[in-house]
Amino acid sequence: MDIKNLYINMGGEIKRFEKFGGNLEEGYEFSYKKRVADIDVQLFGLISGDFSPIHFDENVALKTKFKGRVVHGMLTTSLISAALARLPGLVVILETYFVYTAPVRIGDEVEVKGIIQEADLKKNRYKINIDCLVNEKKVVEGWVKILVWY
Amino acid sequence: MDIKNLYINMGGEIKRFEKFGGNLEEGYEFSYKKRVADIDVQLFGLISGDFSPIHFDENVALKTKFKGRVVHGMLTTSLISAALARLPGLVVILETYFVYTAPVRIGDEVEVKGIIQEADLKKNRYKINIDCLVNEKKVVEGWVKILVWY
Repeated sequence: MDIKNLYINMGGEIKRFEKFGGNLEEGYEFSYKKRVADIDVQLFGLISGDFSPIHFDENVALKTKFKGRVVHGMLTTSLISAALARLPGLVVILETYFVYTAPVRIGDEVEVKGIIQEADLKKNRYKINIDCLVNEKKVVEGWVKILVWY
Repeated sequence: MDIKNLYINMGGEIKRFEKFGGNLEEGYEFSYKKRVADIDVQLFGLISGDFSPIHFDENVALKTKFKGRVVHGMLTTSLISAALARLPGLVVILETYFVYTAPVRIGDEVEVKGIIQEADLKKNRYKINIDCLVNEKKVVEGWVKILVWY
């Protein structure tokens, strides 16, 4: 069976890969949303090897401050990679800084919002402020530095 | 078909979830290795939505400075999540800072090396220096801050 169809059958949301428009410059804003399904948590466990009970064992997770299973923080921030890939050009991530401010639940739709804070138009390097939101609540904040090949 | 068996059949490496021993304190060191297979890149694309040609289209990637497809940077750093999850206790990632210093190729085995730089034993908070290596070459460097629930 084709892996994409399998993913959809297991509840995954396939995102079309469509580039954002416009030119990269200071103040340029973009947004990207994806729903994180249980299959995403399962697959993130397999590809990373992070099988922490806080993501996989509801009984253990219920006894913590989180009161239930949560999505891997780095699965949430992987959506930032997908958002950046949609910028014009070929994007290379150079540097990242993220603070995880609130847990993300299985089934949550995460919105990545980015705004270019600094643009070096000679070297095609950009510093981008990032927020990740679930129902308008901030779950991640930080910044990335990227290089773009045109 | 069971998802784990499917992953193995497609060339994925399943890591056993075994905790590291010892007590977390300044100078505590740990290491975790995983081989990144093509199926990992495929699955990371699906769960994040990052289908950038630099990861998926050899013809496009060959024309770049990378001279071929590379692994998503954030797939490499997801192995840090797996390494941290193996520390004693239940680990919550609070903050991360990473610099991507060299590309990772499909098939590369990545080693995550961590050393606790600061330990707040009252609040169970730790700052950990991280290097990711491929054949002794540094591909990622940075640090994380974590909270541990015992």
